[in-house]
Amino acid sequence: QQPQQQEDQEDLFPPDNFSMVDAGIYRSSFPMKKHFPFLRKLGLRTILTLVIEELPPANLDFVQAHGIRLEPFKYIPLEEVKFAVREMSDASNHPMLVHCNKGKHRTGCLIGCFRRTQGWAVSSIFEEYSHFASPKARLVDQRYIELFEPEDENAASKKSVL
Amino acid sequence: QQPQQQEDQEDLFPPDNFSMVDAGIYRSSFPMKKHFPFLRKLGLRTILTLVIEELPPANLDFVQAHGIRLEPFKYIPLEEVKFAVREMSDASNHPMLVHCNKGKHRTGCLIGCFRRTQGWAVSSIFEEYSHFASPKARLVDQRYIELFEPEDENAASKKSVL
Repeated sequence: QQPQQQEDQEDLFPPDNFSMVDAGIYRSSFPMKKHFPFLRKLGLRTILTLVIEELPPANLDFVQAHGIRLEPFKYIPLEEVKFAVREMSDASNHPMLVHCNKGKHRTGCLIGCFRRTQGWAVSSIFEEYSHFASPKARLVDQRYIELFEPEDENAASKKSVL
Repeated sequence: QQPQQQEDQEDLFPPDNFSMVDAGIYRSSFPMKKHFPFLRKLGLRTILTLVIEELPPANLDFVQAHGIRLEPFKYIPLEEVKFAVREMSDASNHPMLVHCNKGKHRTGCLIGCFRRTQGWAVSSIFEEYSHFASPKARLVDQRYIELFEPEDENAASKKSVL
C-alpha cells in the first residue's frame, strides 16, 4: 500500500478562514500541522507570512520539505505593503498562500490593497474585508486600504480582474 | 496622478458575498446590473442559477449578449444537486458562477456538496458554509451536506483539492 494513497483518503483540513483570492492566490489563518496535507495538494510555491514572531519548527520543516519559498514579512511600512502586493501580482510566485495569525486583519489589509490594484470599488473591498474579519472589522485597516495608492505598474500589468 | 486612467477605469463591483471557490468556479449573491462590468471581466462561460423565480430581463440580456450559458436550477432534489456538482466539476463549463439570491443557503449547500467530492473534512466545510451564511447558518443545510454522498466518478476524476 502506498503512502500517497493513504493520504488521498484522509479528510482534508484547510486552515480556518481559508479562501481563494484569485487564480494562484490563497489566504488563510496560521496553518497548523493538521492543515499540511491540504496545503501540500495546492502545490504552493510561496508562502507570504505576515507574522512577526518566529515560526514553529514544524512549519519550517514543511516548507523545506516541499521546496516552498517562505517570505516572512513585517507589514505596516507602506513600502513593504507595496512590495507584498507586487509579489502577489507576480505569477511566477504562484501558487501562493498569504496568511497571518487569524487571516483577518493583516491578511485582510494586504488583500484589500491588492484589490485596489485590481480596480475593485472600495465598498466592495470593505465587504470582502469585513467578511473575513467578522466580527472584528477594524476602521484603521479600512482607512489604510482606502488611502493605499496602487502603483501604475500593477494597474498596467494586471491580467485578471478578480 | 493620472486622471485619464481613472476616468477610463470604472470601479468594479463584484456581487455581494462574491468569492472564488476553485479555479474557474465563483460564487455570489444575485448579480445586479451594476455588477455586470465586473462579471464580464471574468469571461464566464456558464451561470448556474439556483433561483426558482423568473430572471429579470437585464440578466437575460446580459447572458445573451456575452454568450453565457444560463443553467436555471431548482435544487432540493438530490438528483439535481448531483447534476449540479457534476456541472461544477466539469472544466468545460468554466469559468462558472454559482449563485442564488443571497449566496448563503442554496449556494452554500451546493458548494458544501462540491467540497465533499474534493475530500474536505465536514468540519471545514461547515466553517466555510457558516462564513458565507453568517449570521444565518441553517442546520438543515449542514445536515444535507453531511449526508450527501459524493459520486465515485467525481472522486476519481478530481484534479484539484481546493
